[in-house]
Amino acid sequence: MPASYAYLGPEGTFTEVALRTLPEAATRELAPYVSVQSALDAVRVGEAEAAFVPIENSVEGGITTTLDELVAGQPLMIYREVLLSITFALLVRPGTTLSDIKTVTAHPAAQPQVRNWLKAHLPEAVWESAASNADGARLVQEGRYDAAFAGEFAAARYGLEALETGIHDSPHNAQTRFVLVGRPARPAARTGADKTSVVLWQRDDHPGTLRDLLGEFATRGINLMLLQSRPTGAGIGHYCFCVDAEGHISDRRMAEALMGLKRICLQVRYLGSYPRADADTAELGGRFPGTSDEEFVAAAEWVARCQDGRF
Amino acid sequence: MPASYAYLGPEGTFTEVALRTLPEAATRELAPYVSVQSALDAVRVGEAEAAFVPIENSVEGGITTTLDELVAGQPLMIYREVLLSITFALLVRPGTTLSDIKTVTAHPAAQPQVRNWLKAHLPEAVWESAASNADGARLVQEGRYDAAFAGEFAAARYGLEALETGIHDSPHNAQTRFVLVGRPARPAARTGADKTSVVLWQRDDHPGTLRDLLGEFATRGINLMLLQSRPTGAGIGHYCFCVDAEGHISDRRMAEALMGLKRICLQVRYLGSYPRADADTAELGGRFPGTSDEEFVAAAEWVARCQDGRF
Amino acid sequence: MPASYAYLGPEGTFTEVALRTLPEAATRELAPYVSVQSALDAVRVGEAEAAFVPIENSVEGGITTTLDELVAGQPLMIYREVLLSITFALLVRPGTTLSDIKTVTAHPAAQPQVRNWLKAHLPEAVWESAASNADGARLVQEGRYDAAFAGEFAAARYGLEALETGIHDSPHNAQTRFVLVGRPARPAARTGADKTSVVLWQRDDHPGTLRDLLGEFATRGINLMLLQSRPTGAGIGHYCFCVDAEGHISDRRMAEALMGLKRICLQVRYLGSYPRADADTAELGGRFPGTSDEEFVAAAEWVARCQDGRF
Amino acid sequence: MPASYAYLGPEGTFTEVALRTLPEAATRELAPYVSVQSALDAVRVGEAEAAFVPIENSVEGGITTTLDELVAGQPLMIYREVLLSITFALLVRPGTTLSDIKTVTAHPAAQPQVRNWLKAHLPEAVWESAASNADGARLVQEGRYDAAFAGEFAAARYGLEALETGIHDSPHNAQTRFVLVGRPARPAARTGADKTSVVLWQRDDHPGTLRDLLGEFATRGINLMLLQSRPTGAGIGHYCFCVDAEGHISDRRMAEALMGLKRICLQVRYLGSYPRADADTAELGGRFPGTSDEEFVAAAEWVARCQDGRF
Repeated sequence: MPASYAYLGPEGTFTEVALRTLPEAATRELAPYVSVQSALDAVRVGEAEAAFVPIENSVEGGITTTLDELVAGQPLMIYREVLLSITFALLVRPGTTLSDIKTVTAHPAAQPQVRNWLKAHLPEAVWESAASNADGARLVQEGRYDAAFAGEFAAARYGLEALETGIHDSPHNAQTRFVLVGRPARPAARTGADKTSVVLWQRDDHPGTLRDLLGEFATRGINLMLLQSRPTGAGIGHYCFCVDAEGHISDRRMAEALMGLKRICLQVRYLGSYPRADADTAELGGRFPGTSDEEFVAAAEWVARCQDGRF
Repeated sequence: MPASYAYLGPEGTFTEVALRTLPEAATRELAPYVSVQSALDAVRVGEAEAAFVPIENSVEGGITTTLDELVAGQPLMIYREVLLSITFALLVRPGTTLSDIKTVTAHPAAQPQVRNWLKAHLPEAVWESAASNADGARLVQEGRYDAAFAGEFAAARYGLEALETGIHDSPHNAQTRFVLVGRPARPAARTGADKTSVVLWQRDDHPGTLRDLLGEFATRGINLMLLQSRPTGAGIGHYCFCVDAEGHISDRRMAEALMGLKRICLQVRYLGSYPRADADTAELGGRFPGTSDEEFVAAAEWVARCQDGRF
Repeated sequence: MPASYAYLGPEGTFTEVALRTLPEAATRELAPYVSVQSALDAVRVGEAEAAFVPIENSVEGGITTTLDELVAGQPLMIYREVLLSITFALLVRPGTTLSDIKTVTAHPAAQPQVRNWLKAHLPEAVWESAASNADGARLVQEGRYDAAFAGEFAAARYGLEALETGIHDSPHNAQTRFVLVGRPARPAARTGADKTSVVLWQRDDHPGTLRDLLGEFATRGINLMLLQSRPTGAGIGHYCFCVDAEGHISDRRMAEALMGLKRICLQVRYLGSYPRADADTAELGGRFPGTSDEEFVAAAEWVARCQDGRF
Repeated sequence: MPASYAYLGPEGTFTEVALRTLPEAATRELAPYVSVQSALDAVRVGEAEAAFVPIENSVEGGITTTLDELVAGQPLMIYREVLLSITFALLVRPGTTLSDIKTVTAHPAAQPQVRNWLKAHLPEAVWESAASNADGARLVQEGRYDAAFAGEFAAARYGLEALETGIHDSPHNAQTRFVLVGRPARPAARTGADKTSVVLWQRDDHPGTLRDLLGEFATRGINLMLLQSRPTGAGIGHYCFCVDAEGHISDRRMAEALMGLKRICLQVRYLGSYPRADADTAELGGRFPGTSDEEFVAAAEWVARCQDGRF
């Protein structure tokens, strides 16, 4: 049996496209699942080697379904992330022209991204929601609707053609971040432009508790990239925090920050350290005075020498 | 034309029940709207005096649709909050017994709350989703399904009876928090057990930025009750923060904390100060040394005397 | 009776020279006192309008005699400061040459500053201590010693001449800071390059108490220029802190910092706000984001508008 | 040659009494030196095994002569501390009665401690200063003065008797703290009630620098016991800080705090970890949540497991 990657299906969606950008995906069997939960459960029970799911996008922020699955249940770990710019193509049956289009379809999440384009180019078209963008394309193929918003890559699969590409309303390129999640094992190797994900539960609740947690990162020169509160299940107003921080658990500053959090938090769940998908544009960590590995090592050696009376 | 309150409909849902707990609702026309956005827009355009919408619950945390509407667009303000415990009744047509039930329905959000009860009492029943809990009750009335999970209050409206009440899976009572939102005006009067809501945008992004924002509350003895990040629209990884903090803008410590945030943030949006719905169980603010109004006033008077050389 | 300034005597010392750099000294009677305590007491009892005493130098740091007098007893306030570079002249009776000098004298505090010069130029000369540098010059005049280290200005008074001037061993120019101290009244006007002095007593003693006091300055972008601990009199290990901070009590950031300290300290004694003697080289305050008067005023106005529901 | 301890002489002073409370002093030759500097230099050049000098008292705070010697020059380390309560006896030649006393003597530092007693019991007596309290006793023995204030222990040495004992003006018992200083070697063993002394030089000077240094202690639950600024020699307004902190360099929290300081300071000089002289009344360290050795070890082990993917 070949190793397989579970992913949030169906086939022909942005998730699959993002997954296929990972070199290791080429040598795995890729299996679509109907939900984030089922894909992650496939990993937990050993049915899949890893799962590939969306975790953050520029419209919704942290994707709570995915975060909640990682926060609770049997521990999982993130090994890779992929950033995908989301732009839509308008897919039609060959021969259809813009003036032929009376009905358009796509997953509801696509609507905010194409609203302005629709208003400008197809103000009369009626919108019908589909279960997924891929499913919308299939319904156009079947003749149920005239056009579907989907990834351009979906055209070939459904025998459609793209009347228009690069559609996105946001002035900023809409992006989705996906992660490859597996059972706990040794984290991905440090690359120098990495990210570490943890979940933090506060020990108590007084003014400054959360500030002090964040201080464990701040005083060691570590930037935060995501801070998403999620209910703990203990009732309204009780939250834990999903945090993405700049750096790798092998970085001395990160290891010490995690130790600090472990000591002052009620609970910490480590979700992995992995290469940043935006490593090309990222500034390297450890660039604040006193936070490089070399400075941590030198400081530890100095304390050891003091403990021996040699300095 | 009588003053009216828009609320997230349809009629017969928990939202309406929560709204009716407000004394002022008795003298307003209550108008259901199909979405949070449409209810809030009704306020913005002057169609309604205020809107009543859910903003946080013990399962989802901050309700992003509502938060995103408050974060952007024409400013609105929160004037009241209501906490409602959510427990379900199993509604059936009169005469139906437990053993008659083959199909059950409700809004999908209800499912996590009744899953265990179903497994224990109706393991064979088939679940069908409804557009709202009220709509599920209507479908039972019409004979389409055998039973609906809904608020007990919905029984009378649809000619049903409650076979079972008080159903909720969570060990902690499931709660939803609703807010009454209006156009900007003078905040609700200080009661001594209040909450202040703001949205914060960071000026820049370096290690410690968010810690320093939270420090404006912490150093003045102010507890946080909600911290929910929301995308700013400037692309993935860019967030603003919706914050609920303990206290009223008329409290000296809160006024000074807001001033501090205004100075160090790129932008602050004030969303109002209003009585806490859990005032009966809340500890009063200003209980940390040096943070009471009296101490703030005394300190300001002392500085004024120093400026005059009298002390 | 003309207004008088008490100063730490005797006449003909650096203190008198520093005092005479103040324009207002020209119109006062200047009265030497035998000690800092007696000069300050002269102010307290109304015998003098103000007292001029050393408070910090580059060798000793804060001068504890002066600080202790300001910390305790009837409150006094600082209105002006003077910085004086201390360099010595070698004073001799007219006609004396370097090779004639067998004995040298000065106040003991002068010795560390001229030690290297002596070793290089008069390695055989015997050192004898004098009660003050002025007294040393007098003893040379009387023929008791061959040469005295003193300020060049002392030559004329004692009929001596300066064989050598500009003597100082320190690679950095030795400086002494003097302050003009009066009874409490309206502080000196704000110049934009000011200093504020306070004494702080901690309310309690737990990890972070002192850090939190300093945080009241730091979070408002205020630099510290002196932090000197002094015993409170409550036994060993009990300290209060004399602090010089950059800015004037009329600066909004400073007024708010002082208010914060007043609230969280056991006690605060305000010692005045006055123009910095190094104003020409000083960077202006309020240069950190969010800490200018304009930003404080804008923030206060914004909170006031929020309290009114207008924004 | 027997090992010897240098101490600040002359013989028969409080320093010698304090030194003799150390069990190890019984087996060393004790050699008085004329100054703190000469006693410490004796250690530096190998003439003495260790030096015993005063470092802090309840009237003066940190004793700057001693601190400055430890801050600069060839590194030394503190191995022990002794706390001595300072009370005076009035020593006279046998047969002298109170009414016989016209002149009294002692070191000038004694005067503030006996001033009230003198005013009450010998209002007419003339004060004459002596070079040390021991020297004052000698002068009484020689008949030069009628009475000397000194330690009761000095009576026997000079053939005097104590007319009165337990004289001290301070409402709080006056205390002096002494330290035993040697060349760098392995610190004294951890006892659980220890103190660590360091000197800190700031890397740069912006609002918050000093607060951040203190934060390295505060965030790890470490109390400060002394913070004394001393000039760095780089000109007026430039200071380093002598800090005594609660705990031993072998305590995990202290080791990590020192590492943090080493990373963010321009320079750190370790002055040793040694048993607290007030151990009997001291609260034990590590009593704040998350700061015990056990919690540090557990956190380090957890991070190690995370780095291996086992948790």
